[in-house]
Amino acid sequence: MAERRVGLWLIGAVGGVGATATLGLSALRRGLAEPVGLTTALPEFAGLDLDAPAEFVVGGHDIRQATFADAVQELYKQSHVFSPALLAGCARDLDDWSANLRPGTLLGAGETITRLGDRPDLVRFASARAAITQVQRDLHDFRTRHRLEQVVVLNVASTEPPFTLTPAHATLAQLDTILDQPDALPASSVYAYAALDLGWPYVNFTPSTGAGIPALAELAQLRQAVFGGKDGKTGETLLKSVLAPMFAERNLQVLSWVGHNIFGNRDGIVLNNPSNKASKIRTKDALLAQLLGYKPQSHVSIEYIESLGDWKTAWDHIHFAGFLGTKMTLQFTWQGCDSLLAAPLVLDLARLALFAQRQGQVGVLSQLACFFKSPMGDDDHHFGRQFAKLVAYAAQHHRTPPVSVS
Amino acid sequence: MAERRVGLWLIGAVGGVGATATLGLSALRRGLAEPVGLTTALPEFAGLDLDAPAEFVVGGHDIRQATFADAVQELYKQSHVFSPALLAGCARDLDDWSANLRPGTLLGAGETITRLGDRPDLVRFASARAAITQVQRDLHDFRTRHRLEQVVVLNVASTEPPFTLTPAHATLAQLDTILDQPDALPASSVYAYAALDLGWPYVNFTPSTGAGIPALAELAQLRQAVFGGKDGKTGETLLKSVLAPMFAERNLQVLSWVGHNIFGNRDGIVLNNPSNKASKIRTKDALLAQLLGYKPQSHVSIEYIESLGDWKTAWDHIHFAGFLGTKMTLQFTWQGCDSLLAAPLVLDLARLALFAQRQGQVGVLSQLACFFKSPMGDDDHHFGRQFAKLVAYAAQHHRTPPVSVS
Amino acid sequence: MAERRVGLWLIGAVGGVGATATLGLSALRRGLAEPVGLTTALPEFAGLDLDAPAEFVVGGHDIRQATFADAVQELYKQSHVFSPALLAGCARDLDDWSANLRPGTLLGAGETITRLGDRPDLVRFASARAAITQVQRDLHDFRTRHRLEQVVVLNVASTEPPFTLTPAHATLAQLDTILDQPDALPASSVYAYAALDLGWPYVNFTPSTGAGIPALAELAQLRQAVFGGKDGKTGETLLKSVLAPMFAERNLQVLSWVGHNIFGNRDGIVLNNPSNKASKIRTKDALLAQLLGYKPQSHVSIEYIESLGDWKTAWDHIHFAGFLGTKMTLQFTWQGCDSLLAAPLVLDLARLALFAQRQGQVGVLSQLACFFKSPMGDDDHHFGRQFAKLVAYAAQHHRTPPVSVS
Amino acid sequence: MAERRVGLWLIGAVGGVGATATLGLSALRRGLAEPVGLTTALPEFAGLDLDAPAEFVVGGHDIRQATFADAVQELYKQSHVFSPALLAGCARDLDDWSANLRPGTLLGAGETITRLGDRPDLVRFASARAAITQVQRDLHDFRTRHRLEQVVVLNVASTEPPFTLTPAHATLAQLDTILDQPDALPASSVYAYAALDLGWPYVNFTPSTGAGIPALAELAQLRQAVFGGKDGKTGETLLKSVLAPMFAERNLQVLSWVGHNIFGNRDGIVLNNPSNKASKIRTKDALLAQLLGYKPQSHVSIEYIESLGDWKTAWDHIHFAGFLGTKMTLQFTWQGCDSLLAAPLVLDLARLALFAQRQGQVGVLSQLACFFKSPMGDDDHHFGRQFAKLVAYAAQHHRTPPVSVS
Repeated sequence: MAERRVGLWLIGAVGGVGATATLGLSALRRGLAEPVGLTTALPEFAGLDLDAPAEFVVGGHDIRQATFADAVQELYKQSHVFSPALLAGCARDLDDWSANLRPGTLLGAGETITRLGDRPDLVRFASARAAITQVQRDLHDFRTRHRLEQVVVLNVASTEPPFTLTPAHATLAQLDTILDQPDALPASSVYAYAALDLGWPYVNFTPSTGAGIPALAELAQLRQAVFGGKDGKTGETLLKSVLAPMFAERNLQVLSWVGHNIFGNRDGIVLNNPSNKASKIRTKDALLAQLLGYKPQSHVSIEYIESLGDWKTAWDHIHFAGFLGTKMTLQFTWQGCDSLLAAPLVLDLARLALFAQRQGQVGVLSQLACFFKSPMGDDDHHFGRQFAKLVAYAAQHHRTPPVSVS
Repeated sequence: MAERRVGLWLIGAVGGVGATATLGLSALRRGLAEPVGLTTALPEFAGLDLDAPAEFVVGGHDIRQATFADAVQELYKQSHVFSPALLAGCARDLDDWSANLRPGTLLGAGETITRLGDRPDLVRFASARAAITQVQRDLHDFRTRHRLEQVVVLNVASTEPPFTLTPAHATLAQLDTILDQPDALPASSVYAYAALDLGWPYVNFTPSTGAGIPALAELAQLRQAVFGGKDGKTGETLLKSVLAPMFAERNLQVLSWVGHNIFGNRDGIVLNNPSNKASKIRTKDALLAQLLGYKPQSHVSIEYIESLGDWKTAWDHIHFAGFLGTKMTLQFTWQGCDSLLAAPLVLDLARLALFAQRQGQVGVLSQLACFFKSPMGDDDHHFGRQFAKLVAYAAQHHRTPPVSVS
Repeated sequence: MAERRVGLWLIGAVGGVGATATLGLSALRRGLAEPVGLTTALPEFAGLDLDAPAEFVVGGHDIRQATFADAVQELYKQSHVFSPALLAGCARDLDDWSANLRPGTLLGAGETITRLGDRPDLVRFASARAAITQVQRDLHDFRTRHRLEQVVVLNVASTEPPFTLTPAHATLAQLDTILDQPDALPASSVYAYAALDLGWPYVNFTPSTGAGIPALAELAQLRQAVFGGKDGKTGETLLKSVLAPMFAERNLQVLSWVGHNIFGNRDGIVLNNPSNKASKIRTKDALLAQLLGYKPQSHVSIEYIESLGDWKTAWDHIHFAGFLGTKMTLQFTWQGCDSLLAAPLVLDLARLALFAQRQGQVGVLSQLACFFKSPMGDDDHHFGRQFAKLVAYAAQHHRTPPVSVS
Repeated sequence: MAERRVGLWLIGAVGGVGATATLGLSALRRGLAEPVGLTTALPEFAGLDLDAPAEFVVGGHDIRQATFADAVQELYKQSHVFSPALLAGCARDLDDWSANLRPGTLLGAGETITRLGDRPDLVRFASARAAITQVQRDLHDFRTRHRLEQVVVLNVASTEPPFTLTPAHATLAQLDTILDQPDALPASSVYAYAALDLGWPYVNFTPSTGAGIPALAELAQLRQAVFGGKDGKTGETLLKSVLAPMFAERNLQVLSWVGHNIFGNRDGIVLNNPSNKASKIRTKDALLAQLLGYKPQSHVSIEYIESLGDWKTAWDHIHFAGFLGTKMTLQFTWQGCDSLLAAPLVLDLARLALFAQRQGQVGVLSQLACFFKSPMGDDDHHFGRQFAKLVAYAAQHHRTPPVSVS
């Protein structure tokens, strides 16, 4: 079983999340880190035939020129995370895997992301179709060179501006009629198309469109591919999905929920553009109404504060009425390092998507809801129930006991 | 069905929690308040044949001389809760029910609580047996005068110092041999004994001993009575039971959990006595190890700060390690009015205990775990799972559809 | 000396600040409250011949129809402040003084404020001159009817949108050439013109333009009038003016200062209009550069959250570098009731402005800097130094000792 | 002038504060750091003839065996402070200066500190006199070997248990009669005696007794030495000394002030011993009454939470009454790295003490009040006034302009 070799292909590979996931994969395979933060390392998932860290090879697309080593050094210096020993111990893997980086596409990524693109070999594609073709070529090449049995494509790039679906996105046939236009699909969907068309799993860790297009769901069915998303639930929204149920289940009435998020990483620069920010706020704010059964006044802000680096700080102020109309308050401050909260979930998702595909699942991976701010295939944002569903899924898919005669 | 009449007998009736529960019951029956904060008012419990507010009569024991009206006025002035309209609308009920107040017992309640006792008619009982007899006389009298079908005895008094069980508490027969001593049982257990011996439900909303004695569990079986407890989960501990599972289910490692609680009500005066405080801290701190699967460093403090009145403010600082050993922090500040958080749960418990007894249940009410810091009959502190169990219980006990001909 | 009678004329009289200042004045004269929150009640100011509460009569302009009693009742119900006893004890004064309310002008007050105007007798003036004339008529009438020796005009109305000065505002003569136009002056400056032209003191507690026009400074000189402002420093900005000096004097380098303000009173509705908000944020943010000597990244947000009522909650996150570049954090949460923080300062300003005029001062009251976010006549925002200047001013103006022969 | 050579002799040299001050001195002399956090680097002090970093040699006593390099490595790993480049650049200085470390004395340091002592060459002195003699020998040797013009002795060791003064501590003559006893003086006073007796400056950065003994003040006069202290004001108490004046100067009534401090460095282990903690809490709590003019209810706790390392986190909850009795709240959370807050102040104090001695000052250095929680020679805790006094002192001691001819 140790022979299996799989690939993790990251879109936005040298961003904070991508580079940290890559570093972490190396650290895990070399025994330099414990799997703290990985859901799949919990005892509940011990019975699943998931890929071990040592079985992974990493590659990816990016529009920036950095290597994995550059990216983790930047995080190390700016945000005081990682230790020199860890960086040294993983240097070789990072270098090897940096050779697998390829220029990404900027189609529909919006002005702010485009400005960050500094690879000299970036191609300005004339059509979505041309971009898809090139992406598929890169993916094929990666798989072949490393003799991989499976590859999962995982989007950890910065948030795109909102993309409006048109009737042409309703079916695969209709989508085909516009694919020769350059703005037929946003970049995240170009990658999703490329992966699903190859029959490979695609997971969207961002709020961008990705596979969230009817035509792509059709494509996944056609190619027997799985997909999941979207927008990793790492901090403030995770807390919302844990605390809002508490208010609901105690029948306390949330009057207002205000959340202020500040951070200073590259994602922050992108989200400082109001159009990119709009995508993000939408997914951070929607869950309250579902969890509470009514819509309290709410406010979410996201501000780029350079000095914070990757340390995302969220202040939430929850004003609620208790018995006899008494107004009370819960405030919390969350100080988490974004890339390090996200990276283990990225590894979880890669493992679970590859596993699901091997199990013959097709279409949306609704069992992954607990990982996402906007879970595809499951409307329930209640974290406790989401986690229970994943545990139940795991219980159903335990390996047959290897040697049993009776 | 509207004919049913039931009684709520409160131990510590004119404390903040007791008086607020009483005021709230009046407000609900008169339509002056919404049932915000009542778990049993959630749709999940609509199918249960619970007693309506209008069916309740309130009485109770206390060691202080105040009426219900005095008690709510004190809260109103000190803590700026309730509205004049609400107080006016409920004045009549409070007066009527104040007539049902009887002097409590101070047996084993400890020095600080004893100092608060100011009723001129307080009796210093010579033995636990004598105290039980008097309590039962009061309970009987209440039931008879108001022609009640059932009465639930609910302890909302201040926290007693820890009580050490001896071999004599192991069985009912052995307990009988020491009942003529004055210190055989703490006050909370005197009331529990009295209620259970009558076959009536007893619920302990405090961390005091109450029915938590093997001999009393035996008594409940003998008399076919139900009991539940202990220590209402209203604020900081509720949050712990919601947040600790999040850390566990994300495989984040809690390094330390520090909780500081400050408040200024009469409970605070009692808890300022180190011996009473010890009982409380024990129940606030124990759940982390169960929920996380390991014991992080933890610290809980409770301080009496007079100016806060009934507004309990808790600051919790949770330090945790994420992926690659990165230390992160969650802090929260909870500003809740203690009596108003507790009172609706008291009403929930009264309704659910009376219902369970009607259903023929005997012994510990393990379905009530979600209400308690130290749930009797259920070791699991995970709030989500506790609530799910109560919902499942409700689903099993829905009224048969009314298929009625008459 | 007790014969002296003075008037306090409030612009925006029945807003939260105006009504609370009025209630407070009544409470002080009737001995129903201590002068907590009044700077002028400190021992340092005991030697000044300031007007006692009993010497004041209150009147004012407003565009809303409410009486003082309506306004304090609204605050009482919405924000749980004041006690019924206080309201009852002051009811007579509030009624008497409500008779002195007159319809205000909406000239240049902006769309959102205009929408709040509900007095049936509001006049739509054809020119600034016409508005000034009417305001002066109201002021004169107030003074005459109550036989007042002095009247101070104090602006506590909602924040206007920013007003752009033109060359025509540079001198009184030039201003005169445009006064027949309706948009020559914003409402706050109409009132300032009216007061100063009468030789009366004018104080601007808001960020609106008020007397902040060169032509009006000239008018004050001409009429021997005093004026002061602007924008009362009550909460978050007060803290900034106290904490920023600490960082500067410890040579700690502020990297970023983020301030989020949420509240739900009528001012909040007005500030929710981006154009009105712009005026406010400007004055809340400017002081950092002056106090620190450099401009850190900063962000100030103000959001209207209805459930909070008059309880303004501010969360500030200050990120700073210490020795050897170590980044550290100070966060604070301020939960203050806006009207009750502002009202005592309004009374201080009224007393100090009336006193200054009696002392023969002319022009800007630079000694009042400690009261304002944007102090006129003093560029220094350092609260400690501002307070020291006021104390020094008081020391210079102590009454001559009453009986001294030598 | 560059020829001047001075010594900084640290008591508790390889603790977090001592080692960081040493590292910082090296970093400053090598141009590897900006003087952020140093008061004496502010423009107000540019005119003083203070010793430049390059003029310092470091030595010290400690009871632990570590070198400076060990100590900074421990901080680096445990608390994620410093950069590898900084550590590398300063390694040579740290090694050189580690050669100047000498075994300290444990006389009267208390049980917990004693347990930390692990140098094999620690001497158990038979009397205070013997300890003083050895300390003076070490000091002399340091000065001679490095040909230093002046040496300042600065106590940055852990907090001792409270020491009770007896009549024998009242005068130098009486003290002499008990010096042959082992418990005549606590360790901090042994060092103070040794330094002052040599006529050298002694500064106490801790709450321990140090020079705070009448007999030692007499000794300082006799030997023409200066001394200062005590207990560096670095975090929570600094904020108190800034915020309490704000409440006082706004005439807001502080009802209660609760401060909870948590941290996990070696000082924390020592302070976890209730007897050592008592000394610390005393100095953290005393200033409120002086600053406010009355004593609000207050509570200070200090808890050792290992995971925090050197990151001291303080949560303060300030409850205050505003106008008309309205209760409001300010909360703050301070997250500062203790050693890095303290170290620059240590360098400031060394420079200012050496300077004062050169200026011929004798006795207590009351101009240093802004640096201390319990300033000797100045009862005023108001940070703004303390800082202003230091600035005034500096203005009086500016160098004569260099009368240059060119």
